Amino acid sequence: MATKAHERSGELFERAEAVIPGGIYGHQSPRLLTRGAFPSFLAEASGCRVRDVDGNTYIDYLCAYGPIVLGYNHPAVEQAAARQRARGDTLTLPAEVMVELAERLVPLTPGAEWCVFAKNGSDVCTWSLAVARAASGRKVVAMADHAYHGVHGWCNHMKTGFLEDDRCAVRSFEWNDVTSLERIFAEERDDVAAVIVTPFRHELLEDSVLPAPGFLEAIRQLCTRYGAAMIVDDVRAGFRLNLGGSTQSWSVTPDLLVYSKAVANGYPLSVMLGRDSLRSAAESVFMTGTFFLQAVPLAAALATVNELETGDGIGRMDRAGRRLCNGLGERAAAHGFDVVISGPPAIPFMTFRADEGSFKRSYAFAGACARRGVLLHPLHNWFLSVAHADTDIDATLDAADESFREMKGQF
Amino acid sequence: MATKAHERSGELFERAEAVIPGGIYGHQSPRLLTRGAFPSFLAEASGCRVRDVDGNTYIDYLCAYGPIVLGYNHPAVEQAAARQRARGDTLTLPAEVMVELAERLVPLTPGAEWCVFAKNGSDVCTWSLAVARAASGRKVVAMADHAYHGVHGWCNHMKTGFLEDDRCAVRSFEWNDVTSLERIFAEERDDVAAVIVTPFRHELLEDSVLPAPGFLEAIRQLCTRYGAAMIVDDVRAGFRLNLGGSTQSWSVTPDLLVYSKAVANGYPLSVMLGRDSLRSAAESVFMTGTFFLQAVPLAAALATVNELETGDGIGRMDRAGRRLCNGLGERAAAHGFDVVISGPPAIPFMTFRADEGSFKRSYAFAGACARRGVLLHPLHNWFLSVAHADTDIDATLDAADESFREMKGQF
Repeated sequence: MATKAHERSGELFERAEAVIPGGIYGHQSPRLLTRGAFPSFLAEASGCRVRDVDGNTYIDYLCAYGPIVLGYNHPAVEQAAARQRARGDTLTLPAEVMVELAERLVPLTPGAEWCVFAKNGSDVCTWSLAVARAASGRKVVAMADHAYHGVHGWCNHMKTGFLEDDRCAVRSFEWNDVTSLERIFAEERDDVAAVIVTPFRHELLEDSVLPAPGFLEAIRQLCTRYGAAMIVDDVRAGFRLNLGGSTQSWSVTPDLLVYSKAVANGYPLSVMLGRDSLRSAAESVFMTGTFFLQAVPLAAALATVNELETGDGIGRMDRAGRRLCNGLGERAAAHGFDVVISGPPAIPFMTFRADEGSFKRSYAFAGACARRGVLLHPLHNWFLSVAHADTDIDATLDAADESFREMKGQF
Repeated sequence: MATKAHERSGELFERAEAVIPGGIYGHQSPRLLTRGAFPSFLAEASGCRVRDVDGNTYIDYLCAYGPIVLGYNHPAVEQAAARQRARGDTLTLPAEVMVELAERLVPLTPGAEWCVFAKNGSDVCTWSLAVARAASGRKVVAMADHAYHGVHGWCNHMKTGFLEDDRCAVRSFEWNDVTSLERIFAEERDDVAAVIVTPFRHELLEDSVLPAPGFLEAIRQLCTRYGAAMIVDDVRAGFRLNLGGSTQSWSVTPDLLVYSKAVANGYPLSVMLGRDSLRSAAESVFMTGTFFLQAVPLAAALATVNELETGDGIGRMDRAGRRLCNGLGERAAAHGFDVVISGPPAIPFMTFRADEGSFKRSYAFAGACARRGVLLHPLHNWFLSVAHADTDIDATLDAADESFREMKGQF
């Protein structure tokens, strides 16, 4: 599985730099997957594999950073999308599929009585705050310290270009530390509109952290006691852990649940689902976008959820993820590397303890794997898809084994 | 062209109401195109025509509220989209088409040296503010009173669910009143980061207003003098008046230009273009979204701009719009109605002077036209597309003539 150089990626990146600030911005920037060691442009994708512009093929564990949950170019999704596209996509009025998808998602989701659609994860995270504020007449929103909830001013990680005022009603608690959240409720008690939380902690440059026993339940109880909305930001994890919303795996039902990434297997869509008690508040908030009710992504989402449900997609990704994580752990140990494998198996991540935050070994490992046709991220969690078959996992583990062996000389 | 009732629309809307707050939200809500008088769901679209779920066909002057600039299901756009889709759409890394589109748009746009892509108009309006603030280190943004720049907190029209703090750095001036903007600069002089303005005023429930001679130029001069960025929000008008950005029609070049709606003929995309002096500021702002670099909309945009340019799309829409506006004016006058036809011909609007803001005649007229197979909006500006041929305009004028005649008894 030896790969060619990234010449064409390099050429395209130089052209990109001339006309786009930073060449490639955001989560796909080569600041993270550094040029030379990793490709910067892709030419093709199918199943769990991508081909870069230099002709190198990879088993892809980024899945477009989440969206590709059934595999690239999935026949059932593409057929449903093509059928809808022939009728109409972006239209002056909604298509029937808007109703069909809402009628499919609402009963699938414990606690939810309604839903709305948008385009970005950021759209629905911000929309959920607005609904909670409209419902309660309160201002304060509590979020886990430095959690990623999108790029809007109230939570933009970098802050550059935004105002302190944008964050003035946002307070932070420590993940898995109930006391730090209780403190916010005690201090702001009559003014906490919502707590927004991801189902597990999945931050760049950190090992992922599952919720400690009782943590999500405690948030649920605090929200209920103080009349605040519990919002689950399931943008990254949604449709990989539980089709009823990821926190169902911990038996916790939020008041508002937001999805995006995986919900339409790559078609641009985000969703907010909510309790009946928040319906009139949701109706009172003016949120709209030219493409929010675009019909093809809605049809793709309907096909995606059907495929995931009938094909036990969740179970399959969990098993594939376990096979990958167990195999990586064994091979790392065999070569004398002490690794931390974190997160749920379907959204795993691996770091090297000896790196102590430098990510040197992580980069060496991901780079060595890339040369062997496996695309893993040194800093960002990975994603399994239903298209990752046992044979793909085993090929990945072979590449990992060789990569660990190669690294032994360096570290 | 008599139409059937809206039974199926009604049934779908009742189902929608059970699972979606308000049934249909945002700009497509039947609060505006009221149920019964207008369809609420569409089943098919092609060229300049849409078919509703009850089988009624309309010549559509909403064009999905702007996006459909070449006509629905345009062959060249769909072929380009299909070609890219077969290779990959939402991917772990960008596709080559990202570079190709940026290289196409930048030289097309006077003053622009770079661009970035996103999904919603709101995304790029807010992003442009962040770039202007990052570049200047200033806070204040000036906008025309009650202008629509999307749904984010700093400009959301309804305010419900948002905070006063979200708008604390936004000041309003009067459209076409240079003095009111000069006052803001005088009062805030060292703290105005940007002036954001649409190329003409196109607000719901109002006649559209073109820029008075010298108005856009004065904004340009004030921004230059005070070191603020001039942002043109071309989300609604873009690609219908001038392929170099709509204010080129008034010989004014902004520092930042944002597009969305028509830029990819219905595929979800927004674009911000900017001057070289703002490049490093743009690079310093962290903005990203899962679907921002989705490849198919970029390929569709490339095809759209090529088709518009080679086929003189701008000229054709202008001529079709003039034919429509002149014809409507003549027929209204012939039946004794005093109408106000406003906006540029490619994005026209018509109201009845005797309505005095009640929109009673507007609703009667749009309703009568809808029954005759022409979809016009009583409250919101209309859009021409390249697919609106002379025969379509003439059929529209026939329907309008009958509608005016029918209305004479009522008013």
